[in-house]
Amino acid sequence: MGNEKPKLRVGLIGTGFMGKTHSFGFAAAERVFDLPFELELHTVADRTEELARAAARGLGFKNATGDWRRLVSEPDIDLVDITAPNAFHHEMALAAIAAGKHVYCEKPLAPRAAEAAEMANAAVSAGVSTQVGFNYLCNPMMALARELIASGELGEIRSYRGIHAEDYMGDADGPFTFRLDPVGGGALADLGSHALATAEFLIGPIERVLGDEVTVINSRPDAKGGRTAVEVDDIGRAFLRFANGATGSIEASWVATGRKMQHDFEIYGSKGALTFSQERFNELHFYVAADAGRVRGFRRIEAGPDHPPYGLFCVAPGHQLGFNDLKAIEIALFLEAIAGQRSEPFGFKSGQRVQELVEAVHTSAVETRWVSTLKHVA
Amino acid sequence: MGNEKPKLRVGLIGTGFMGKTHSFGFAAAERVFDLPFELELHTVADRTEELARAAARGLGFKNATGDWRRLVSEPDIDLVDITAPNAFHHEMALAAIAAGKHVYCEKPLAPRAAEAAEMANAAVSAGVSTQVGFNYLCNPMMALARELIASGELGEIRSYRGIHAEDYMGDADGPFTFRLDPVGGGALADLGSHALATAEFLIGPIERVLGDEVTVINSRPDAKGGRTAVEVDDIGRAFLRFANGATGSIEASWVATGRKMQHDFEIYGSKGALTFSQERFNELHFYVAADAGRVRGFRRIEAGPDHPPYGLFCVAPGHQLGFNDLKAIEIALFLEAIAGQRSEPFGFKSGQRVQELVEAVHTSAVETRWVSTLKHVA
Amino acid sequence: MGNEKPKLRVGLIGTGFMGKTHSFGFAAAERVFDLPFELELHTVADRTEELARAAARGLGFKNATGDWRRLVSEPDIDLVDITAPNAFHHEMALAAIAAGKHVYCEKPLAPRAAEAAEMANAAVSAGVSTQVGFNYLCNPMMALARELIASGELGEIRSYRGIHAEDYMGDADGPFTFRLDPVGGGALADLGSHALATAEFLIGPIERVLGDEVTVINSRPDAKGGRTAVEVDDIGRAFLRFANGATGSIEASWVATGRKMQHDFEIYGSKGALTFSQERFNELHFYVAADAGRVRGFRRIEAGPDHPPYGLFCVAPGHQLGFNDLKAIEIALFLEAIAGQRSEPFGFKSGQRVQELVEAVHTSAVETRWVSTLKHVA
Amino acid sequence: MGNEKPKLRVGLIGTGFMGKTHSFGFAAAERVFDLPFELELHTVADRTEELARAAARGLGFKNATGDWRRLVSEPDIDLVDITAPNAFHHEMALAAIAAGKHVYCEKPLAPRAAEAAEMANAAVSAGVSTQVGFNYLCNPMMALARELIASGELGEIRSYRGIHAEDYMGDADGPFTFRLDPVGGGALADLGSHALATAEFLIGPIERVLGDEVTVINSRPDAKGGRTAVEVDDIGRAFLRFANGATGSIEASWVATGRKMQHDFEIYGSKGALTFSQERFNELHFYVAADAGRVRGFRRIEAGPDHPPYGLFCVAPGHQLGFNDLKAIEIALFLEAIAGQRSEPFGFKSGQRVQELVEAVHTSAVETRWVSTLKHVA
Repeated sequence: MGNEKPKLRVGLIGTGFMGKTHSFGFAAAERVFDLPFELELHTVADRTEELARAAARGLGFKNATGDWRRLVSEPDIDLVDITAPNAFHHEMALAAIAAGKHVYCEKPLAPRAAEAAEMANAAVSAGVSTQVGFNYLCNPMMALARELIASGELGEIRSYRGIHAEDYMGDADGPFTFRLDPVGGGALADLGSHALATAEFLIGPIERVLGDEVTVINSRPDAKGGRTAVEVDDIGRAFLRFANGATGSIEASWVATGRKMQHDFEIYGSKGALTFSQERFNELHFYVAADAGRVRGFRRIEAGPDHPPYGLFCVAPGHQLGFNDLKAIEIALFLEAIAGQRSEPFGFKSGQRVQELVEAVHTSAVETRWVSTLKHVA
Repeated sequence: MGNEKPKLRVGLIGTGFMGKTHSFGFAAAERVFDLPFELELHTVADRTEELARAAARGLGFKNATGDWRRLVSEPDIDLVDITAPNAFHHEMALAAIAAGKHVYCEKPLAPRAAEAAEMANAAVSAGVSTQVGFNYLCNPMMALARELIASGELGEIRSYRGIHAEDYMGDADGPFTFRLDPVGGGALADLGSHALATAEFLIGPIERVLGDEVTVINSRPDAKGGRTAVEVDDIGRAFLRFANGATGSIEASWVATGRKMQHDFEIYGSKGALTFSQERFNELHFYVAADAGRVRGFRRIEAGPDHPPYGLFCVAPGHQLGFNDLKAIEIALFLEAIAGQRSEPFGFKSGQRVQELVEAVHTSAVETRWVSTLKHVA
Repeated sequence: MGNEKPKLRVGLIGTGFMGKTHSFGFAAAERVFDLPFELELHTVADRTEELARAAARGLGFKNATGDWRRLVSEPDIDLVDITAPNAFHHEMALAAIAAGKHVYCEKPLAPRAAEAAEMANAAVSAGVSTQVGFNYLCNPMMALARELIASGELGEIRSYRGIHAEDYMGDADGPFTFRLDPVGGGALADLGSHALATAEFLIGPIERVLGDEVTVINSRPDAKGGRTAVEVDDIGRAFLRFANGATGSIEASWVATGRKMQHDFEIYGSKGALTFSQERFNELHFYVAADAGRVRGFRRIEAGPDHPPYGLFCVAPGHQLGFNDLKAIEIALFLEAIAGQRSEPFGFKSGQRVQELVEAVHTSAVETRWVSTLKHVA
Repeated sequence: MGNEKPKLRVGLIGTGFMGKTHSFGFAAAERVFDLPFELELHTVADRTEELARAAARGLGFKNATGDWRRLVSEPDIDLVDITAPNAFHHEMALAAIAAGKHVYCEKPLAPRAAEAAEMANAAVSAGVSTQVGFNYLCNPMMALARELIASGELGEIRSYRGIHAEDYMGDADGPFTFRLDPVGGGALADLGSHALATAEFLIGPIERVLGDEVTVINSRPDAKGGRTAVEVDDIGRAFLRFANGATGSIEASWVATGRKMQHDFEIYGSKGALTFSQERFNELHFYVAADAGRVRGFRRIEAGPDHPPYGLFCVAPGHQLGFNDLKAIEIALFLEAIAGQRSEPFGFKSGQRVQELVEAVHTSAVETRWVSTLKHVA
């Protein structure tokens, strides 16, 4: 039956780790899902033609180019996938949109919300589909959490606590990198963006924030042998007010010694509660207030075929999905959106939204006042 | 050798659950510890002499009275222990101090910090020893955490996250009680006080706070058959700045469905990290950054004789202390302070301090500004 | 109302750690429970009168003696509590029974089942009440587990796995002690006895066993500066057949490096499952097969007032009982049995039974055959 | 550099779930690893040419056939991958070996050890490489465990406990299937084989076993509307003696209500201990006896780039591998063995060995005697 599927030709810009991960994701999505398209890995672009050619062989693309603009203007290509360094996202995405391509872009879309908005609006005008890489949200257990909330099984949501903490910037003698760039850098932008996206994915629109930002390591060794002052936050926090009346908080830290993937949340409703940790992302813990008192307690739910699309990866429960499987799900959802089978799960508007939330927290932290975030809701 | 120990005669006011717990604590402390005193449970006071007499028999006291003022003025009594309702703490404690007694009082000392200060100052002037019931801090694993921080094994402390969440006020149709009294009530005062006390116990003085308060259940059924508006917080949160440069947050909630004793903390330093949950308070989790990478991870330390005074309760590790054992430790520490063997672990100044922190958070939440808390540090 | 309670006078033999624990347990039981008796700590016996007198003061007993036989024959004493070294249990208990006393004796009753049987039979003939110290079984969560099984909430029981592993004999250079005595020693007798008692407490009579015993450390340093060969097991294991058709296994080890209190079980039934670890003994994990598939998982039940007699120790859930609290429960149950309010929870017949099971496993391991254990069931 | 790699052409027999998983694994392995071959998915065989043709399109193979014998005799094919039903493994593998192909076969190799031996010996004679699918052993944390043992970091190994329990056969009204076939069926063969393979992978050769087998559900509904008696075990257990002196046990159950993937082990050595659960297979827990007493405890090690080949899948720790990633590792290891870069990780000899162990446990259970397993060690 695959025969009559339309072709979708992919052009990939960037061949680093994320380029590899995306290529892998396309291949995996095609094998795991019954996609609406037959994929063709058409062209890969890198800084030089030589690099691109080597990458094409390794990643399974047919053609290679040292000029991303040629890829973007190639008439045969339907989807441009941008995994180049963050600084290029804005220019590349706008060019691809202008050429009428669907665009898949790693986060962050752009260092500032205004630029992200420009990209999102361009896509709407051009009528192309877009996607930002929010892989954590593609976890079947995340979908289950959202569903339990939406269906009222938690009752009225009362509070939310979200965290994204890691320790990869915890070494005071680690080098000054692009992540520390005063424009668009910081733990809040890098990790808090995930915590904020998860909060809205599960609970709904955030209305107001009261932020807190801290620079823990005030200078870092630079390439010139000295130390450069750090202007961005190492830890960002915010109190939240949701449109549905719930309140909460998020925290982001990249200096949380010992934490590798603490993308966690706790949600308390009038009828139940949920807790989750990305460190064990094949589990969701669910408290049901209506259970009889003496046998009531958080249920450790293990991912299985009851939690689609888990069953497409493994026939039996308990086998566990991995990080790369989440990427395949992310790609499948995007392709369904391109085919018109569903709305965009994480379109550029979502990417813009997260940047706006990050900026609102930042403004709030600097000015010590509640900052409204409601006008921007998609 | 107990023969030559001086006597210490105890008068107990209040015979409810806390009165029972304290009586039990005195008995337990005497058997477990080599106390500096021989204890005599001298007199118990309750609302009527009849009630007091019944309690005296049950709790092991020699005498009984229906008038707490007589107990306070009894010359033979050395230590007055107040477990009467919160509203009486201030008056009773001042009377006991005036009579030259040492005073042990359940928390909160008083609904307002100013009154707590009056009590603390009176005790200093009178030269008597005092104690407020901060039982969580008497846990050997809490002592271990403090010691690891103080000794530098965590390096420079970077961030702190403290929580105290339960769900005993989570039922929207539960009755309006004294806990909801606009003066001195609320989750922040009731539970946040524990979270704040733990934060300072471990990390040191808090300098500034930025607070957030929320009333989730806006009215509760009252005794007249109607509903009374709730003015106090069901959830309280604060960002923290510590004097040593660390930053952090606390959260208090009494509507956290499913939570029975989430008095938890996470501490991240430059060399290590600690996590703790009161739900499993015989454990402390310790990450040592210096451990070799491939075998590094949070160590689940189980309480044992290596963690004094655990060994006085059980000769072998892993047997576990219970909540009432913490009370016995609390009493032993107080008696040692009375005997001049150590400083007051949780004197009325500590009780005053916590009330000040609670009020600072409240003011901050109402006015949306950072509020200094430093002037009051003991 | 305590006034009209009959007195029960206690005589304690042995003042070491267990003597202290028992004294503490009597005091705690009296404060926590509404006991059927007013307790009087009458006399304590130790090796010399001087030691006994010091202990009497410390433990709260009125009288002291250097001769346990005088204690046993003291007409006023109702209950003799034996915490002397294991080697004396048999002689002391028989003497106390002969004198018409109720007897409380630490485990093991005797090194051989035959002697334990003699003790149990003597008590029956004399019409006195007896108890052996099976404190783990006094845990409210253990009672909950038993109740869930008995009420059919787990369905037909299919399999059982029990463990009791610690590491206190794990050091190959630790001294040769009484625990290694060829008569009555070994991990199976010391720890496996707990695992076997728990198995029968929860599932019912064991019918047959197939054992396995291993000596891991073949010799240990003795008092003479040499090494003595070890004849007893460091690890004991058994396959089990229960009378109700369930099958299972137990394992006992005192060389399980890192384990402090792994008294754990897992029980699988046709409708549900239970898992438990003594390392976190205020929790029971319960799987309910009938829960809806997508939200089904082991429930982490935390001990609380729904699990009697927890509520007598703490008014709120989540506060946690400690090891010494289990001892108080054990004593309260015994006193209720003496008062005729219930059957003996862990009488000498239970102690005899466990010794028989241990011996059956040993015989089975030596002869590599299934050994029947059914004739002895109480 | 991929250019000069030799080609390896794959023929796949069977297109069910495992066929899909293998196809996916080949694709994943090629993207994640720098394989010694350029893979070509040459031909797929299914029961009819039509089915095969559809599968070829879906799975990315060039050719299709309805006759697996034609695939096996196709000169261009280098590697035959067998995912057909178990009953065909023996015949297909022998035919492929006879045709000089390398053979990759899902477990079990054959229902009886003798047939597995025939297959293993044929492969040795033909000089082809073989592999059985032991994916659990391809987990980087399993490799870490093995390495810690081999390097002596656990000291002398004292005991082992292995489990593989699930509940997919727990419903007494579930149908009679091929898994219940008296020849080659049963929980011990299906799941115990994994537990035994893991035990030898980690600790080394098993010398003797003492087995226990139980049928819990004595009959199951058959296709004719009646019930067929079940002759195989629902639960299998064994005590183990390892050649290095360690002892242990394994248990297999497919009626363990609530368990989805309890492939767990605990290992105790003189210097440390390890615990692992497949339910959280990105973690290994490691106790180091030499750690200072007050801060000693099981370390929760999270998988990361320190644990190769994790880093090829994710650049950062904590992201987690999934079940399908383990398949990709399994394939990469096999291809390296074919290229002569390493020995066969899980060749047919390993498959034969596991069948022998299963049969030894079975014999032992039936005859209640220790059965030697040493002669067969590879």
